[in-house]
Amino acid sequence: MRQAFHEELSALTDSLVEMTNLVASAMSRATTALLDADLRLAESVISGDETVDLLRHEVEERAFDVMARQAPVAGDLRVIVTSLRIVSDLERMGDLALHVAQVARRRYPASAVPPELRGTILEMGQVAQRIVAKAGSVIASRDVAMARELERDDDVMDSLHRQLFTVLLQEHWSHGMEAAIDITLCGRYYERYADHAVSVAHRVVYLVTGVPIYVRTTGGGMVSGGIEAMRTR
Amino acid sequence: MRQAFHEELSALTDSLVEMTNLVASAMSRATTALLDADLRLAESVISGDETVDLLRHEVEERAFDVMARQAPVAGDLRVIVTSLRIVSDLERMGDLALHVAQVARRRYPASAVPPELRGTILEMGQVAQRIVAKAGSVIASRDVAMARELERDDDVMDSLHRQLFTVLLQEHWSHGMEAAIDITLCGRYYERYADHAVSVAHRVVYLVTGVPIYVRTTGGGMVSGGIEAMRTR
Repeated sequence: MRQAFHEELSALTDSLVEMTNLVASAMSRATTALLDADLRLAESVISGDETVDLLRHEVEERAFDVMARQAPVAGDLRVIVTSLRIVSDLERMGDLALHVAQVARRRYPASAVPPELRGTILEMGQVAQRIVAKAGSVIASRDVAMARELERDDDVMDSLHRQLFTVLLQEHWSHGMEAAIDITLCGRYYERYADHAVSVAHRVVYLVTGVPIYVRTTGGGMVSGGIEAMRTR
Repeated sequence: MRQAFHEELSALTDSLVEMTNLVASAMSRATTALLDADLRLAESVISGDETVDLLRHEVEERAFDVMARQAPVAGDLRVIVTSLRIVSDLERMGDLALHVAQVARRRYPASAVPPELRGTILEMGQVAQRIVAKAGSVIASRDVAMARELERDDDVMDSLHRQLFTVLLQEHWSHGMEAAIDITLCGRYYERYADHAVSVAHRVVYLVTGVPIYVRTTGGGMVSGGIEAMRTR
């Protein structure tokens, strides 16, 4: 029974890694859809989010089922509870990719990204890929050192996020209010996506070390910092 | 021991209700700070978020401690796991109030809210209060009927959120890009705050009925809808 139990835990971990791959692919496609105004790609992300939601539901049910049948003790219990929290982060990351794809779809056949911001959004998409790939590795390998790396990637994301505001607040912004709103929201989506990936890594670190790391609550603060930086020029 | 255990569960619930009150007060003060450009109030929200974070930490530690000592079975275990998930929502709501307060602080001594949007933001603050108060009642009473009410309040929030975009996209917007960014972000903060309150209620419903309700993933979709509505006029 013990053996079967550990196989179930291992299967839960596999599902989390699978979900990580799904939300990585979703954000990758959403970014391309946004930059290239690719409607079909945007639609694929939007309709594909259901698979992420279903997988989340399945993981949750299996986790509760294992808890009910096996009444696991402290360490194993912590693994299951951590899985439940990671699955929430991953599901939310899927939603954020969906939101980016919705912006792409709404602005089709135009691209929501003005030329001077293409490079920044492209890079935000790339950092998102790097960070979600590492989050997947951390889930699979429980590699605490790699978990620390995600924080550095997240700093890069925050810096790119600030760059968006720098451009938006330039006097010669000529793309109108709708584009400004879209960029503001997409910036927030990428930044939150990265935050959730960091949160996933932190939860694994907590599992391994028993020492909690709390996610910095700088989501909006970063934005403030961005605009603040502009003002003091 | 059974008695002691149930007292511990009950104390966990009390802490969740206390946290709900804290994040309700935080958003209430943040809204006033935003509308009245009240720096001291904004600062009180920003420094007060630490208390929310500490309470979250304490609830999590106690929950894990109870699980480790009591090895609770299915139903009780579900209560504890639900508490852990509710505490994440509440902590996030505190962050969102903090973000609103940060916007108020950044724009001081001006108000971040242009006159024509004061009514909408005021109302978003009021709906936030109503919805978080109900979330607290749902946690305390496990009242499934009230949990359904939150969804209607959330619809009102979404509608107010759309109103913001209506005004932002009017041709005669004269408050500049910084104000537009602030309104876009604050709108998102209120909307997410309400979503998390709904999520809290859903988790309690799941606990009581065993039937999961998944939070609608319309956060960004609402925004899209809002702008879409503008366009089709």
